[in-house]
Amino acid sequence: MAPPKILIVGEIVWAGDDVQQLLAPISQVITYDSQNRADFLAGCKAGGKYDGVVGIFRDNTSADRIGVFDKELIDGFPASLKWIAHNGAGYDQIDVLACKAKGIMVSNTPGAVDDASATTALYLLISTLRQYSISERSLREGKWKPQGLNKISHDLTGRTLAILGLGGIGMRLAELAHAFPMRIIYHSRSKVATAPSWCEYYPDVEKLLAEADVLSVHVPLRAETVGLVGEKWIRLLKRGSVIVNTARGKVIDEDAMIRALEDGHLASVGLDVYPNEPQVNPRLLDFPNITLLPHMGTENQDTQRKMEVRALTNLRDFLATGKGQDLVLEMK
Amino acid sequence: MAPPKILIVGEIVWAGDDVQQLLAPISQVITYDSQNRADFLAGCKAGGKYDGVVGIFRDNTSADRIGVFDKELIDGFPASLKWIAHNGAGYDQIDVLACKAKGIMVSNTPGAVDDASATTALYLLISTLRQYSISERSLREGKWKPQGLNKISHDLTGRTLAILGLGGIGMRLAELAHAFPMRIIYHSRSKVATAPSWCEYYPDVEKLLAEADVLSVHVPLRAETVGLVGEKWIRLLKRGSVIVNTARGKVIDEDAMIRALEDGHLASVGLDVYPNEPQVNPRLLDFPNITLLPHMGTENQDTQRKMEVRALTNLRDFLATGKGQDLVLEMK
Repeated sequence: MAPPKILIVGEIVWAGDDVQQLLAPISQVITYDSQNRADFLAGCKAGGKYDGVVGIFRDNTSADRIGVFDKELIDGFPASLKWIAHNGAGYDQIDVLACKAKGIMVSNTPGAVDDASATTALYLLISTLRQYSISERSLREGKWKPQGLNKISHDLTGRTLAILGLGGIGMRLAELAHAFPMRIIYHSRSKVATAPSWCEYYPDVEKLLAEADVLSVHVPLRAETVGLVGEKWIRLLKRGSVIVNTARGKVIDEDAMIRALEDGHLASVGLDVYPNEPQVNPRLLDFPNITLLPHMGTENQDTQRKMEVRALTNLRDFLATGKGQDLVLEMK
Repeated sequence: MAPPKILIVGEIVWAGDDVQQLLAPISQVITYDSQNRADFLAGCKAGGKYDGVVGIFRDNTSADRIGVFDKELIDGFPASLKWIAHNGAGYDQIDVLACKAKGIMVSNTPGAVDDASATTALYLLISTLRQYSISERSLREGKWKPQGLNKISHDLTGRTLAILGLGGIGMRLAELAHAFPMRIIYHSRSKVATAPSWCEYYPDVEKLLAEADVLSVHVPLRAETVGLVGEKWIRLLKRGSVIVNTARGKVIDEDAMIRALEDGHLASVGLDVYPNEPQVNPRLLDFPNITLLPHMGTENQDTQRKMEVRALTNLRDFLATGKGQDLVLEMK
């Protein structure tokens, strides 16, 4: 019997050796070569180059060539396909309900990104509270330090960090910020049983917002989280507070956030994500006192390799046992 | 009997209320109004406006008007002067040996700056290892993320942080970096008895350098620390390592550091301090992959108020008991 076929839809950059070790002994690994969606869909047909594939390794770079994994693409997959191992924590580029309807399981790489994403949030927290982004720009423009900055800058220590969504990344940020210590409060759909005692649960999000010096957003993008942090929530924050977003841009109502920056209700924001990446709303560039990263959350070789290995391991477990880890919420 | 006279040489920005509470009941507080050194020295003479002063509150802003506290200035102080409470951790702007020779005690504000300075070092650590400074510049130039950055960026977690000088700031950085955790090793003149077990002492600095992924500098500027981190030490670091400096610019041999950046021996540096502030060597601006802050270590209102209160408290203790806290090393 021929070994099961695994298709790489995207690119394995760091874990080439791991492919050999994890998948090569028990499968035939092929890499997609389609330059467009039509070619990919043709390859999925009976007798096509991707026919018979049982598992897919996917990353977001594939969207540049064949688009996101929407219903059209998923409906075109070969009937043999049983598992999509997505290389990333956020899986909003995959229509998981369409997958579920076809009996295709979807896994992501949750734990692998926690450390790198939380470190990005911590960086944005320091940069916004201490006003370091504007400070470096001032130096590089030959002007040494901007005047009056200490009037709007603060220590992290002793301030209150509100975490919206205490999953893996939120919990990791809580640990890093607790070292100062900051006071840590959080809101999630339910109390997190494993959260330490210094991490206070607020069932009422409005009370959480009223006590926050910084709100850090860690909820996934779903239909019900689009614009979740909107006008009302932003205005429930204290005047002079800060928002950090390393989750997904669309979770925040960008217009409401910009209004709050304009009238000084928000002292600053630290953003790694935007509603229409790689487009950045040019109005954001007018605020010198905010920090803007180009979605760098997991952009480093240690974490990228960890993510690749985890996605590959999910495929291997599926091949070896019929059951992989890290199934996304909707599959459970 | 008239109350003892205290002279503010500089400016109290945040702790105005504390002056009233701490000093006003037991002393007469006057603020210097000299626009230049000659006027200041004239005021110190018998019958001058500063005659009879027993304590001075000093900050570095005074150097713009009357210069640093060098031997000439100190020799001109009224004989009544017994205590200089410097508002800052670094006191290289005061010739403490000239003070000692005249029987003038000098205090600084060591603990007050630990948190804010260590936070700055942590920020530089994240920014250099993850390449966030160049990333934000790229975004603000309309270019989204720079290509290939993940090849030169790393997680902090699991890497080795070498701390040169485990005083208050170094120890505070150790605590913050331990949260990841990073492996923490340090070199000081002697083993620090209060250091936790995860903080490993290296009596041999050359062995410390050979194991470091990041070297963070936390030694004060003295005659014997000028150029301490020079060509030899930098070359003992592994190729691709990073130096962070939040102490004083002159502790590093800047030319040797720039050579190591040019030939790639150092992957990056994160600097908050420079040999001739506010001048910044223009050659540094040519490196896009380094992070340069304009001496922001303690630039925030929470820490600045803490420092002012601590310096004022040192004066009050001296007035009330004849003995203040925080005497600098040379006074002990």
